[in-house]
Amino acid sequence: MSRAGAPDRLSLNQETVRQWSLPELVAGCAEAGVGTVGLWRDPVRRFGVRETAKLVAGSGLRVSSLCRGGFFTAADRAGRAVALDDNRRAVEEAAELGADALVLVSGGLAEGERDLAEARRRITGVLDELVPWAAGHGVRLGIEPLHPMFAADRCVVSTLGQALDIAERYPARQVGVVADAYHVWWDERLEADLRRAGGAGRIVSVQVADWVTPLPEGVLLGRGQLGDGCVDLRGFRETADAAGYRGPVEVEIFHPGLWARDGAEVLREVIDRYREHVE
Amino acid sequence: MSRAGAPDRLSLNQETVRQWSLPELVAGCAEAGVGTVGLWRDPVRRFGVRETAKLVAGSGLRVSSLCRGGFFTAADRAGRAVALDDNRRAVEEAAELGADALVLVSGGLAEGERDLAEARRRITGVLDELVPWAAGHGVRLGIEPLHPMFAADRCVVSTLGQALDIAERYPARQVGVVADAYHVWWDERLEADLRRAGGAGRIVSVQVADWVTPLPEGVLLGRGQLGDGCVDLRGFRETADAAGYRGPVEVEIFHPGLWARDGAEVLREVIDRYREHVE
Repeated sequence: MSRAGAPDRLSLNQETVRQWSLPELVAGCAEAGVGTVGLWRDPVRRFGVRETAKLVAGSGLRVSSLCRGGFFTAADRAGRAVALDDNRRAVEEAAELGADALVLVSGGLAEGERDLAEARRRITGVLDELVPWAAGHGVRLGIEPLHPMFAADRCVVSTLGQALDIAERYPARQVGVVADAYHVWWDERLEADLRRAGGAGRIVSVQVADWVTPLPEGVLLGRGQLGDGCVDLRGFRETADAAGYRGPVEVEIFHPGLWARDGAEVLREVIDRYREHVE
Repeated sequence: MSRAGAPDRLSLNQETVRQWSLPELVAGCAEAGVGTVGLWRDPVRRFGVRETAKLVAGSGLRVSSLCRGGFFTAADRAGRAVALDDNRRAVEEAAELGADALVLVSGGLAEGERDLAEARRRITGVLDELVPWAAGHGVRLGIEPLHPMFAADRCVVSTLGQALDIAERYPARQVGVVADAYHVWWDERLEADLRRAGGAGRIVSVQVADWVTPLPEGVLLGRGQLGDGCVDLRGFRETADAAGYRGPVEVEIFHPGLWARDGAEVLREVIDRYREHVE
């Protein structure tokens, strides 16, 4: 859905304007002409899943993704059962919101664990049970690789190639990958893996944020506004397009500097930067 | 060279005990029975290259590596000429010290640059001139991949596979790779790439430090003492050995917490941890 004023394919991930409540997000997007949003489970649940779904649908907004399920690398069966249960709820929420995809971040190593290969193998144990559940709810799953600097504590899936290896165990209409430029820009195999993903119809979401240094303590909140860093964001988007991707391009920037500003001003800047560096 | 008290293959990189002057390092290693050290250009030049060489040789210490040359990704020819000149000096210093290898860290993107592939290509332009110079001085070069979190500002070579691709343009006796567990532990291709490197006789140095989170601001000084983090250091060393590596295992930990302590106490801890987690 396109509205006057903003690029057709731009999707605003709500964490980029974390200072906005859900009604502010919906109103702000309408005001700016943004037709698509990415949502996060925490704020959605605080506002109410049903209430969010009603609000979003009433405004004609499309939901490109719900972030996030995953974190199913617990070393023990009980821990993975808890994770599976939580992921089933996430699937239900994505279905209720009509999200294009539920984003899955695998989780990191277990406490004290030093076996990365084993942690990576545990992912599919949970997915084998989650995929049919998601299919039954009409929800597509997107496996997102995170930057290798998160391999220990957030996501043992570190490259698009690894995410694809996992996704390809399941039908493409049910499981694909999420390509976030921030996480994968450094990878010399990125272009080949995007082609591989696109050729198989498995790119379920494309996200953009820029890489800026120095990284802050904890490295989570160090993403840069589009154009402030060193990622060839347009080249990234063009490669995804050349591989057959036609969906939204979601702007997902975690940055306290953006959160401290007026949300509408941040969104205007995002739109300008998107035009200059992505479109 | 082995001395009583410390594991044969342990090499102490001097940045692990940065609080020590060169004479303190040499005396401390003798006291602890450590027979091999890794040196850094800055402290060596401050003390004097010739003076360091004399001190080290006089004590019977082996120098496993000199850190570091590289940083030759400048976008302009003049900048690369300056880098080449500096690297020639580094080669001379490595020769004078009798170091097993000169470690090369490629450098990051140029100011404002967004073309990672192009920056990677520029490396070989300088290497083509440096390699004969190093060969003439009997110095072996080791290309070190740094963790992808350093791709923008320190090292566009992010994996052992990439380092090998570059090294293989030159004879194995002249150019190899440096495998530092801290930088490459997350890579699912690590085992295959270590086999590839070892099979070609191209592992010129093996280094160890542990991965601990949260990462500090700037991420440079966040390495963990052996055993404090999540890297399977013994598995890493065993894989290098199985690939044919027989050289020193250099402990290189940048951590202000270690620098604030008594150097001899830190070295005793390093030796204990090496025994427990690496040997």
